[in-house]
Amino acid sequence: MKMLINAADTIVSDALDGFAQAHPDMVRVMRNPDFVVRADAPLKQKVAIISGGGSGHEPMHVGYVGRGMLTAACPGAIFTSPTPDQILAATHAAAGNAGVLYIIKNYAGDRMNFEIAIETLLLEGVPVGSVVVADDVAHPVNDLRRGTGATIIAEKVTGAAAEMGASLAECAQVARRALCESRSIGVALSACTIPTLDRPSFHLGDDEIEIGIGIHGEAGRHRTTWTPVSHIVDQLCSALINDLGLRAGDRTLALVNGLGATTQIELYIAFCEVAQWCAAHGIVLERSLVGNYMTSLDMAGCTITLMRLDDELLQLWDAPVCTPALRWGM
Amino acid sequence: MKMLINAADTIVSDALDGFAQAHPDMVRVMRNPDFVVRADAPLKQKVAIISGGGSGHEPMHVGYVGRGMLTAACPGAIFTSPTPDQILAATHAAAGNAGVLYIIKNYAGDRMNFEIAIETLLLEGVPVGSVVVADDVAHPVNDLRRGTGATIIAEKVTGAAAEMGASLAECAQVARRALCESRSIGVALSACTIPTLDRPSFHLGDDEIEIGIGIHGEAGRHRTTWTPVSHIVDQLCSALINDLGLRAGDRTLALVNGLGATTQIELYIAFCEVAQWCAAHGIVLERSLVGNYMTSLDMAGCTITLMRLDDELLQLWDAPVCTPALRWGM
Repeated sequence: MKMLINAADTIVSDALDGFAQAHPDMVRVMRNPDFVVRADAPLKQKVAIISGGGSGHEPMHVGYVGRGMLTAACPGAIFTSPTPDQILAATHAAAGNAGVLYIIKNYAGDRMNFEIAIETLLLEGVPVGSVVVADDVAHPVNDLRRGTGATIIAEKVTGAAAEMGASLAECAQVARRALCESRSIGVALSACTIPTLDRPSFHLGDDEIEIGIGIHGEAGRHRTTWTPVSHIVDQLCSALINDLGLRAGDRTLALVNGLGATTQIELYIAFCEVAQWCAAHGIVLERSLVGNYMTSLDMAGCTITLMRLDDELLQLWDAPVCTPALRWGM
Repeated sequence: MKMLINAADTIVSDALDGFAQAHPDMVRVMRNPDFVVRADAPLKQKVAIISGGGSGHEPMHVGYVGRGMLTAACPGAIFTSPTPDQILAATHAAAGNAGVLYIIKNYAGDRMNFEIAIETLLLEGVPVGSVVVADDVAHPVNDLRRGTGATIIAEKVTGAAAEMGASLAECAQVARRALCESRSIGVALSACTIPTLDRPSFHLGDDEIEIGIGIHGEAGRHRTTWTPVSHIVDQLCSALINDLGLRAGDRTLALVNGLGATTQIELYIAFCEVAQWCAAHGIVLERSLVGNYMTSLDMAGCTITLMRLDDELLQLWDAPVCTPALRWGM
């Protein structure tokens, strides 16, 4: 496995060491169990917003810890859920009197381990709430949908609400509204290679792409031969608009997210197609984010997320944020 | 060629369209000839800082146009210098009364075309200066050294000086000092594929890496078998410290830059090794930047840049910046 690493079994630990040294002004990295927490936590009067999940999706989640976004994040091993003790330790370090809200991606392991943590916290008397991200329309059954790009949007707007002093109930309501108004779908051009396995997570032929792929290489809607990105974006955006019920005149935010090995010029070309697609359908594209925000190791491809905007969500999106991976207004 | 594009010959143009729509608050994208300019240009009383070069290195240079950094950037075709008419059009759109400073990477085509523009401007009576970036210590002959990671540092500190109202001579002096104090070197784990050629730019075996590679795949110092990143970083940093004459007690800024397809966890692991290496040599690492800041399409690998810091360079580095790719303090 040819990577810039020392050994496959120390990847996450070594990367966290580097992350800690690169961003001492924003975060603290705690070990055994491992978690990342805002440098100024705990915030006595503000709700703690915590997420977590398998590593290999950087900058998600550790890159979103900081003022105006996550209070803490729990990185698991590569593509592996964080453990309940990680989640509890992060919560004890991050939460003040106002309680904690978990933003959980809809994977069985993540749900189970966050639920174990929630039960423990309830016994301790800590106010706790949770929302589940299940935005990937590639799966036909709503309850089984995977959590993908909408996670980042939910973390941003909920973190902004918490920063402004919203209560636990209000933060949960903001997160649910953002998730209710968001849908995602992805396309893979190549698989990723999991370091400890030393082989691609799946195989695509030289001219094959897969529509609806998951961020761990889960099967998509269908495999097809390469087509121009205008045609790919048309398929992806059609799936989103139908599921979200977007109509002419609706205001939206678009996230065009690279899966790891895709160049920035490709992401801007894909975004250009999304913008044209929205214009052709009368959808008002008010905000955008283009780049590698939720990766799948070195997979090539992208995900597209659309969120229907209103004044409140727009204000929370625009609010200042200061994290290693997302920063504006401070 | 399996990419998220419409056609190989419209890549740069389509990406610029997307870039324009993603960042209307920061930049304007002008066409025929193509350049990117700050949304609020021309600034009558401030020196215009302009750079440019082949596309395929995004976010360099277009991603660095905005307040506190570049006034304009000229993107050529993939790995191809911008033309003199691009440079002149960008200059006329960007420059006010205080003149223009070009930051030119040391490639024959870039130098030639910027020099043609300079001669035209001198005839027009526009105050103009230039600095050449030649920071890549992989080449043994100083004058033939390639411009790599130090370009971004020079653009940042010089842009900050211009924003604060420095004169053309002062801006040129800041750029020269930053470049004088900076050195870079890279390592490739895989080649990039040039879209119009549809084949890798060079070939590395399954367990081979190349030390000292250029950002277009130019030959490096030597090819070797994969070793742990601690050993790679030791080689790279030793080359930098020797060339720069860094000594115990010196203050530095480190840029660990991904070449495109390398994961963020790998970059943070490499940075961790750089930080440990500096500590072991008594070098005080005061600032850092870790991520994809100057890529080579989908090449895997990284470059490391070290700059010796003093109070003035540190202040200029920390100054507010608001561009699509680098943003803090605003």
